[in-house]
Amino acid sequence: MEKSVTVRAPVNIAVIKYWGKSDENQIFPINSSLSATLNMDQLCTTTTIASSPKFTQDSIVLNGKPDNIQSKRLQNCLSTIKSLALKHQTVPQSFISQKILITTSNNFPTAAGLASSASGFAALTFALAKLYNLDVNSKTTDLSQIARIGSGSACRSLSGGFVQWHKPNASLGVVSNATQVFEHTHWPELIILICIVNDKQKETSSTVGMRRSTDTSDLIVLRDLVTQKRIERITRAIKEKDLPAFAEVTMKDSNQFHAVCLDSYPPIKYMNETSWEVIKMVHKYNDSKNAVKVGYTFDAGPNAVLFLERKDFPDFLKCLLWFFPENNNNNKVAKEKTVYVQGGEKQLVEQVRKEQLQEVKMEGMKRQEGVLRSILVTSLGRGPEEVLVSQDGKGSKL
Amino acid sequence: MEKSVTVRAPVNIAVIKYWGKSDENQIFPINSSLSATLNMDQLCTTTTIASSPKFTQDSIVLNGKPDNIQSKRLQNCLSTIKSLALKHQTVPQSFISQKILITTSNNFPTAAGLASSASGFAALTFALAKLYNLDVNSKTTDLSQIARIGSGSACRSLSGGFVQWHKPNASLGVVSNATQVFEHTHWPELIILICIVNDKQKETSSTVGMRRSTDTSDLIVLRDLVTQKRIERITRAIKEKDLPAFAEVTMKDSNQFHAVCLDSYPPIKYMNETSWEVIKMVHKYNDSKNAVKVGYTFDAGPNAVLFLERKDFPDFLKCLLWFFPENNNNNKVAKEKTVYVQGGEKQLVEQVRKEQLQEVKMEGMKRQEGVLRSILVTSLGRGPEEVLVSQDGKGSKL
Repeated sequence: MEKSVTVRAPVNIAVIKYWGKSDENQIFPINSSLSATLNMDQLCTTTTIASSPKFTQDSIVLNGKPDNIQSKRLQNCLSTIKSLALKHQTVPQSFISQKILITTSNNFPTAAGLASSASGFAALTFALAKLYNLDVNSKTTDLSQIARIGSGSACRSLSGGFVQWHKPNASLGVVSNATQVFEHTHWPELIILICIVNDKQKETSSTVGMRRSTDTSDLIVLRDLVTQKRIERITRAIKEKDLPAFAEVTMKDSNQFHAVCLDSYPPIKYMNETSWEVIKMVHKYNDSKNAVKVGYTFDAGPNAVLFLERKDFPDFLKCLLWFFPENNNNNKVAKEKTVYVQGGEKQLVEQVRKEQLQEVKMEGMKRQEGVLRSILVTSLGRGPEEVLVSQDGKGSKL
Repeated sequence: MEKSVTVRAPVNIAVIKYWGKSDENQIFPINSSLSATLNMDQLCTTTTIASSPKFTQDSIVLNGKPDNIQSKRLQNCLSTIKSLALKHQTVPQSFISQKILITTSNNFPTAAGLASSASGFAALTFALAKLYNLDVNSKTTDLSQIARIGSGSACRSLSGGFVQWHKPNASLGVVSNATQVFEHTHWPELIILICIVNDKQKETSSTVGMRRSTDTSDLIVLRDLVTQKRIERITRAIKEKDLPAFAEVTMKDSNQFHAVCLDSYPPIKYMNETSWEVIKMVHKYNDSKNAVKVGYTFDAGPNAVLFLERKDFPDFLKCLLWFFPENNNNNKVAKEKTVYVQGGEKQLVEQVRKEQLQEVKMEGMKRQEGVLRSILVTSLGRGPEEVLVSQDGKGSKL
C-alpha cells in the first residue's frame, strides 16, 4: 500500500521561557512555559512522508540533503507513533512495517538563526500521525507529548495561538504536554516582528546550554516559582488583550532567561551588541510614549522578536527603520533582490517605506546601518495542518 | 592653629560582589562582600586636608577643580568625624570649628573608568581622622563604618590585603563594618591585571543600578545565601593560596552579579563585546592548560580585572598581547608617549615585550587591535597611610 501525506507546522516563540530539563531522556522541563505560535505564511516547516512497499530502508531528506534517519530523537518519535498505530489498529500491521521516506524543508533559511527544530519535530509528529491514521484530536493520542521527546519546545508547535507547555505534575503522573490557552483569532491586532541580526557567531546549542545552566547556575532554582506567577499574569494579560502587561512580563522573562545563562559556568551569552541596541531602543520608545507599546524577547540567539499592536505598527516601524536602516553598501543588483521588511502587513509597510525617513531623536541611540539583515512582519497563527502539494513542490492548505 | 595632613588610600576590587542596599541612608548592603585591596603604587587617591583660622569657609578641590563641599555623603563623613573628635576631646573645640580645605586627586585618569569613589572616601575619612587626632586603630572609632556612609565600598579600602565587608547582623546590632581577612603580604605571588577597555558608553551609575536591581530583580533574593557560601569558600582558597578555587569563585560571582543586573527592569548591561572577548579568552586559556590559571571579575563597567600567579604571568601576558594588541594606528609621537602595559613587574613585562609576538591559536578567538586602551599590572597592597608631600606635590610614605 502506497501512501503519502504532506503537512506544515509552525514556529513558536516562548514569552515565558523554557530553560533546563529535570529529565534529559523524557525531556521534562524544570518549569512550565508559554509561547505564541507564529503564522505559517511567514515561517513554517513542510514535511512529506511517503510509505511504499518498494522502499528498502527508512530515509530522510532535510532541506534537499540526505540526513541521519537514525537520530535518537527522530527514532523516539517514529517508534512511539508506530506503537500507537499498532495498539489502536489504525492501519494494517503490514503498512506499519513498510519503509518510509521523510522529506522536510523550511520556508525560511536556516542561516536566519531561527530555531527550526520546534517546527521540524511538530511537522514530523503531525505527519506521522496522519500517515498512520491516528486521531490527532484525541486526548489519548497526545501528539504534543510525542513531539516533546523529539525536541522539547516542539510540543508547543502542535497548537495555534498561545500555548502552554506544562511541566510534569506529581499529582497527575508523569505527563508533560502542551495545551492551547487562546486561539490565534483571539488577538488579531497583535503584530510580531522578527529582527534578524547580521551575525554569524557560533553559539552554544540549547541542549548544551540548558545542561550547563541546570548543572551550574544557582539562580535557575528560582525559575519554577517565578514562571508559575508569570504564566498566571501573562495569561490574564492575553485574555484582556492588555499589551503593556503582556509586553512587560515578556521582556522580564526574556531578560531572566539570559540572566540564568550568564549565571552558568562558563557563562553563556546569546545576545550581542545589536540585540542590546534593540532592547535600548524599545525601552526608549516606550518611555517616549509614556506607555509600554512594544515588548521584546530573545531566544538562544541574537535575533529580537517584538510584540506590538497594529495601531502602533507604522509609527514604531518608522523608528525601527530610522535606527536600523538596511545596508546601502549593497550593489544595485543585490539591493533589488533584497526585501528588507518581509512578511505580512504589506500595505502598512509599503505606506511607511514610501515616506521619507524622518529623523528620530533618542538620547544615547545612534543609527546603525546593516546590523539587521531583515525585519520579518508576522502574527499569531494556527497549529499544524495537512496540505496539498502543488506542482512547484509548495504546499497549500487542504 | 594651622594643621595639614596628607594621606593616600587604595582602590579595592570585589571578588564577592556588593550589589544592593537594605538601607539607602545607612548604606547597609543586602549581602556581605569580599575584596582585594590594590597596590597604591599603581592606583590611589591622595588627599590633603588643611585647617586654618584664616579659612572663611569649607571647600574641596577634586583633581584640580573646585567641587561641591555640600555633598550629603561628604557632609555625613565630616560631621561624624567631628562629633567623635568632640566626644573624645582629641583636639581643642576651637580647632574643630575651624574651616578646612580638602584637596584630592587620583594617580589614575578618571577616564580610565575605574571606580574612584571607594579610594576617594577612604582617603577622606582617613585624612579627617588624622586631622582630628582620632585613633585610627581603635575599635570604637571604626573608620570603615564612617567611610561606608560616604560610599559603600569605600569601607573595604580602609584595610590592605583581602577585606570583608559584613552586612548588618541583627544579633550584633546595627553595625556594618569592614575587616581585614588576610594581609597583602599573605599572597605575594598574586598578580592582578586591569584591562582597560576602550569604550566611552555612558553607564548606569552603581547607585541607580543597585536601586533598580533591589526593586525589580527576582533573582537578587538569592544573593545573600549564595555570597555567604562563597565567602567561606574563597576565604579558604585565599588561606591556602589555591588559585584555581579562588579564580573560579571570583568568576562565578562576577557573572552572577551581572546576571542580577540583566534580571533588573529595564535590564542593566555593564560588560561589552570586548569584556566578553576577555571572558572567552580566559576560559579558553584555562582549557588549554587543563587548569584554572586565570580568573576574571568585572565591576559596574566593561574593564576586566584578572587574577593569576607570577609563574604564569609571562605566558599569559603573551597570549593577552597576541589577542589584544595595542592600536598601531597611533602616530609615532603618541606611540612614544603611550605605555601599553603599565605598572609593576617591569622586568617580566620588558622581557615579554622584547620577544617577537608568537601566534596563539584558540578556536573562535580573533585578534582585535586597539579594543583595550591599556593593561595595568598590579598586586595586593596595604591600607591607607599618611604621607609626606614633596615639592612636586606628590606624596611619599612617612
